[in-house]
Amino acid sequence: MRITIIGSGNVATHLAAAFKNAGHRLIQVYSRDMQNAALLAYHVGAEAIDDLKQLNPETDLFVISVKDDAIAAIAAELTRYQKLTVHTSGATDLQTLAAIIPKAGVFYPLQTFSKTKEVDFWTVPLCIEGANEEITWELEQLGQTISNNVNRISSIQRRVLHLAAVFACNFPNYLYDIARQLLEDDQMGFDLLKPLILETAQKIQDNLPADVQTGPAVREDEKTMAAHLQMLDNEPHLKQIYELLSQGIIKNKNGGH
Amino acid sequence: MRITIIGSGNVATHLAAAFKNAGHRLIQVYSRDMQNAALLAYHVGAEAIDDLKQLNPETDLFVISVKDDAIAAIAAELTRYQKLTVHTSGATDLQTLAAIIPKAGVFYPLQTFSKTKEVDFWTVPLCIEGANEEITWELEQLGQTISNNVNRISSIQRRVLHLAAVFACNFPNYLYDIARQLLEDDQMGFDLLKPLILETAQKIQDNLPADVQTGPAVREDEKTMAAHLQMLDNEPHLKQIYELLSQGIIKNKNGGH
Repeated sequence: MRITIIGSGNVATHLAAAFKNAGHRLIQVYSRDMQNAALLAYHVGAEAIDDLKQLNPETDLFVISVKDDAIAAIAAELTRYQKLTVHTSGATDLQTLAAIIPKAGVFYPLQTFSKTKEVDFWTVPLCIEGANEEITWELEQLGQTISNNVNRISSIQRRVLHLAAVFACNFPNYLYDIARQLLEDDQMGFDLLKPLILETAQKIQDNLPADVQTGPAVREDEKTMAAHLQMLDNEPHLKQIYELLSQGIIKNKNGGH
Repeated sequence: MRITIIGSGNVATHLAAAFKNAGHRLIQVYSRDMQNAALLAYHVGAEAIDDLKQLNPETDLFVISVKDDAIAAIAAELTRYQKLTVHTSGATDLQTLAAIIPKAGVFYPLQTFSKTKEVDFWTVPLCIEGANEEITWELEQLGQTISNNVNRISSIQRRVLHLAAVFACNFPNYLYDIARQLLEDDQMGFDLLKPLILETAQKIQDNLPADVQTGPAVREDEKTMAAHLQMLDNEPHLKQIYELLSQGIIKNKNGGH
């Protein structure tokens, strides 16, 4: 397929590389910032542009991978080409494109991407949605050229999925940072916790999280929890987090969110 | 070394197996529950006992790996043997043993253990503390027979470490469960999130968590956060968690816990 990438952020970068590796032809990479466009374009053998007027109409697919707020404006510029056009956003409805582009879809890779870290794209869950069955099918075929984990996910489902991903990824990462800060305050290195963090994530690959919950809250070990809260006396925000999450673990254990 | 294990829980089980694999001789396994004692004793070639009066004094080390609340009472029973005696608790001071046992120490493996899941003990951080330098050195030598990651950690540090581990392990696991429940409510499988969870934990093996924080909070994407909060309107507890952790991410970004 001939593919044009609109955007040069983390998702655009990893997706473009995966398409390239699968043998697709990357035609152009657009970014408002020419340096960013040029860097990604160089990596995937495409032309870099920083003006949408320079778009080459000889393409099969526009991939819009920009900030959520910018998707609608970009889509308005692409409507005239009448090409298959997808966005890659977890938080944006299909309708944002489909309202103005007939061949619209969503191609959302559910993963946390950083430019500096390689990702095995074959394992990345791709969440596909098309404005009609033909488009959905076409995107599914495309998805299967880069991932073994292609899923049909509606806009309503994707919204929930995106929220769930915040709980499963963004919030745990913040908690890792709290842990790091606590250790640093007592002259201990974050390395001490890395095996624990990895094992916690590995455990739930084959177990339900509720079945492998450990720690003072699930044991309702009031003495340890009281000692922990006392240690957080000078950190009211952390104390609040500790209380709220511990309450949740206890509630969860006794059934109910 | 000849080793006696007091306890048959997750830590006792994994530690006993690691000692056995390293060529140590497991003498006895004690548990109040004879079936539990027998199961672990069988695996490590030891004698099972359910009465401390049956303890064989011909041992080099007592490992107390029982609930925190029970450590002091067990220690009182062991004091007469005058043997090297350690507990494996993250939340218990050395002093609990050292007050009544001259050769006292702590041997705390910082990992989340489940009986059903194998753990590569070589990577488990062992936190060592001894009542004097000789004991500390002896425990260090012992630790190095089962782990490549042996650390001298004081009682005060260990208390902080244990608290940090709650933030790094127990709380993220609870958040995984919230995510699973959110997906389940919308007929999606938890499998969708597993690669994301694993990648999030893998990322911080080589990066500071704050440097790889993603999601709407760190972008200060108010629109997405408002949409997420609205979706949680019927889940006041989850809404509170979302608000508190998002505020923390934003605060963190701007410097300070």
